[in-house]
Amino acid sequence: MQEITDIRVNADRLLVDLQDLAQIGKTDDGGVTRISFSDADLQARAWFQKRVLQAGLKFHQDGAGNLFARFPDWDSQSPALLLGSHMDTVLNGGKYDGALGSLSALEVMRTIQEWNMKLPINLEAVVFSDEEGNLMNFLGSSALTGQLSNKTIEESRVGKEQLLIALQNAGLNEEGLFAARREKKSLAGYLEVHIEQGNRLLKAQAQVGVVNSIVGIRSYRVQFLGRADHAGTMSMKDRRDAAQGAAALITKAHDLVLQRYPEDVCTVGWVNLVPGTVNVIPERAELTLEFRSANLQRLDNMDQDLILLIEELAAQLGLSLKMEKIGDHRPAEMSPLVRQSILEAVRILNLTSIEMSSGAAHDAQMLAAVCATGLIFVPSEDGASHSPREYTRDEDCVNAANLLLHTALKMIQGGLNE
Amino acid sequence: MQEITDIRVNADRLLVDLQDLAQIGKTDDGGVTRISFSDADLQARAWFQKRVLQAGLKFHQDGAGNLFARFPDWDSQSPALLLGSHMDTVLNGGKYDGALGSLSALEVMRTIQEWNMKLPINLEAVVFSDEEGNLMNFLGSSALTGQLSNKTIEESRVGKEQLLIALQNAGLNEEGLFAARREKKSLAGYLEVHIEQGNRLLKAQAQVGVVNSIVGIRSYRVQFLGRADHAGTMSMKDRRDAAQGAAALITKAHDLVLQRYPEDVCTVGWVNLVPGTVNVIPERAELTLEFRSANLQRLDNMDQDLILLIEELAAQLGLSLKMEKIGDHRPAEMSPLVRQSILEAVRILNLTSIEMSSGAAHDAQMLAAVCATGLIFVPSEDGASHSPREYTRDEDCVNAANLLLHTALKMIQGGLNE
Repeated sequence: MQEITDIRVNADRLLVDLQDLAQIGKTDDGGVTRISFSDADLQARAWFQKRVLQAGLKFHQDGAGNLFARFPDWDSQSPALLLGSHMDTVLNGGKYDGALGSLSALEVMRTIQEWNMKLPINLEAVVFSDEEGNLMNFLGSSALTGQLSNKTIEESRVGKEQLLIALQNAGLNEEGLFAARREKKSLAGYLEVHIEQGNRLLKAQAQVGVVNSIVGIRSYRVQFLGRADHAGTMSMKDRRDAAQGAAALITKAHDLVLQRYPEDVCTVGWVNLVPGTVNVIPERAELTLEFRSANLQRLDNMDQDLILLIEELAAQLGLSLKMEKIGDHRPAEMSPLVRQSILEAVRILNLTSIEMSSGAAHDAQMLAAVCATGLIFVPSEDGASHSPREYTRDEDCVNAANLLLHTALKMIQGGLNE
Repeated sequence: MQEITDIRVNADRLLVDLQDLAQIGKTDDGGVTRISFSDADLQARAWFQKRVLQAGLKFHQDGAGNLFARFPDWDSQSPALLLGSHMDTVLNGGKYDGALGSLSALEVMRTIQEWNMKLPINLEAVVFSDEEGNLMNFLGSSALTGQLSNKTIEESRVGKEQLLIALQNAGLNEEGLFAARREKKSLAGYLEVHIEQGNRLLKAQAQVGVVNSIVGIRSYRVQFLGRADHAGTMSMKDRRDAAQGAAALITKAHDLVLQRYPEDVCTVGWVNLVPGTVNVIPERAELTLEFRSANLQRLDNMDQDLILLIEELAAQLGLSLKMEKIGDHRPAEMSPLVRQSILEAVRILNLTSIEMSSGAAHDAQMLAAVCATGLIFVPSEDGASHSPREYTRDEDCVNAANLLLHTALKMIQGGLNE
């Protein structure tokens, strides 16, 4: 007779699922485009439902479009430990981001069902809606954890009207979004495996990352305002060239964060010059500035330092300034009890691990607000993410699912909330 | 009986013409959009033809769409002194750029006709096609001066196919473009008045600028190539952030030109980051770099210095590089004989003048290659150009026309080519 510690997921079944899902929304260069609530996403949802039913599990969809796989003996009076991730992708993203966590959760359910284990609480696999924020950041996990409000809907990326149209196309509505909320006491915990999307595990030659904190993220839209003039007739020293403001900020924000906040990051990913022609001095330079830290105090300090820098540069260059905050997520601590369970499972599986923060946002940060939450990383080759180049080796995918399985079992033994 | 030096243009008639033309293509904020060969441009051409005929002058259009006003006794065997400019504008440009020179030329023709003066050579007003280069830089003046070729047509801004379609819409064709060429010996000289489009006359408190040279212009499209990565998971020091290349170049090219080439200018008017989203490190940063000098040696030196800078920055930042030359115009000297005639006319009119280079390109630079050419500037309030804010005071407009008149008369007396 086998010990519980000997249980392993069905590696082949998991890997076939991963490859099957990657066909839905496949792009020419080997990437995947499965924008939330697009035709490809709806097709993936139908595929997932079929897989759940084929396994003899119960399928459930809530009012926010979150998908669940449950055991047939689901007890609506008992709290549930959720295992999951998401299946939507960015435009031309990769095969593993979200998919690995979702399909590992399903595989864990199938494995436990096959072992005929009786658990003292509910266990369910969940696929959250719109993690990538096509409509709204963390739409599904916000709704489930009760962090959705009229305000967040109105301030969503596409605006309320477009959001409701997209929901309608998927057979959903506003009422359902709010009805998707689950009471805090019904949520025993949440556990997610995900690809790292960076290169720290590779550098450390570790198989697993045990996440202690998910970074907080703030972002601003910054506009430097100068004066449009003819590129040939206005002398260099009489110019009020808005591009100089943007350029100085891109260089100096990078240097500031590298020097004063070596653990943190800051990115300018978008710039626009107006009017934007070769022979006119730009009157406006607009850009997005995003910065992240796992520590709230550092995030606040970086915020102050960067705003001071922006104001100084504008003053030095004789430019006016407009700034608008466009994003703000606090850092989210992962539960120490869950981290303990992960480490115990790491030992069972004889894996190597490091403790690390997550530089990327995840549904786990929404869940962390209401229940004991853990996040596990496996390596991304070359650190590639949100790209067709994204790749995680088969053995790391299988490690992810086995670690999810054994961590869940450990949590049920003693790593859950009261 | 009045002396020739007492002749003045009809100021009211000129100012009414300027206001009438400004109605064609008028924009909501007081600017003008009269892109070459657009409906508004075609309407302006018809309006000009009507004004020419109303004045009892002969109207002519050549195969490049250049418009001419001639005296009824036009002698096809004699050379001609051309006075003119253009009527096309940039998108939401101003009322004076091109229009002042074109309508001053027409007004000079009307004034001389009213005085019944017999001239030993032909005098004609010309409105050149597409000075602003909607289809191709200096389309009309290139054609007239024989500087058009299959190569320049194929390398035009919109490409040959689009160029021919646009010409066809205006009743023109490729054959006509080449037929518009006029023999060098038939061109006695060219004289243009134009708004300064800068603030040097205002700073010098001078009424007139006598241009000694039109700047040469070179431009490149530069691409820095790095690697797209997740903005949260890729550490600052492991990035290959293409935006850092663009930003460093914008700052350092500005400083280099300001320090080493204080008389010259350099501009980055357009930047694009790819993929261009808030949370992805840009893999590509593309920009246009344009620089100008009135002196060919300085232009060549600046070119070398800037390319070296670009290569150094790419190497320092671990980025790859693509560069493509997208524009190259040599500086054009204005004729010393014509400048002498302008200065004599300045004295007749009791104006104040300075000698200066032109930072902007003008049809005059194309004409300078084949005949004695002069260029006269009058002040632009606030230095505004290519903008609805463009404004030149009535008295400066009238000065422009009177100076064109008396310079033309002086040139005919002795300032022309052999």
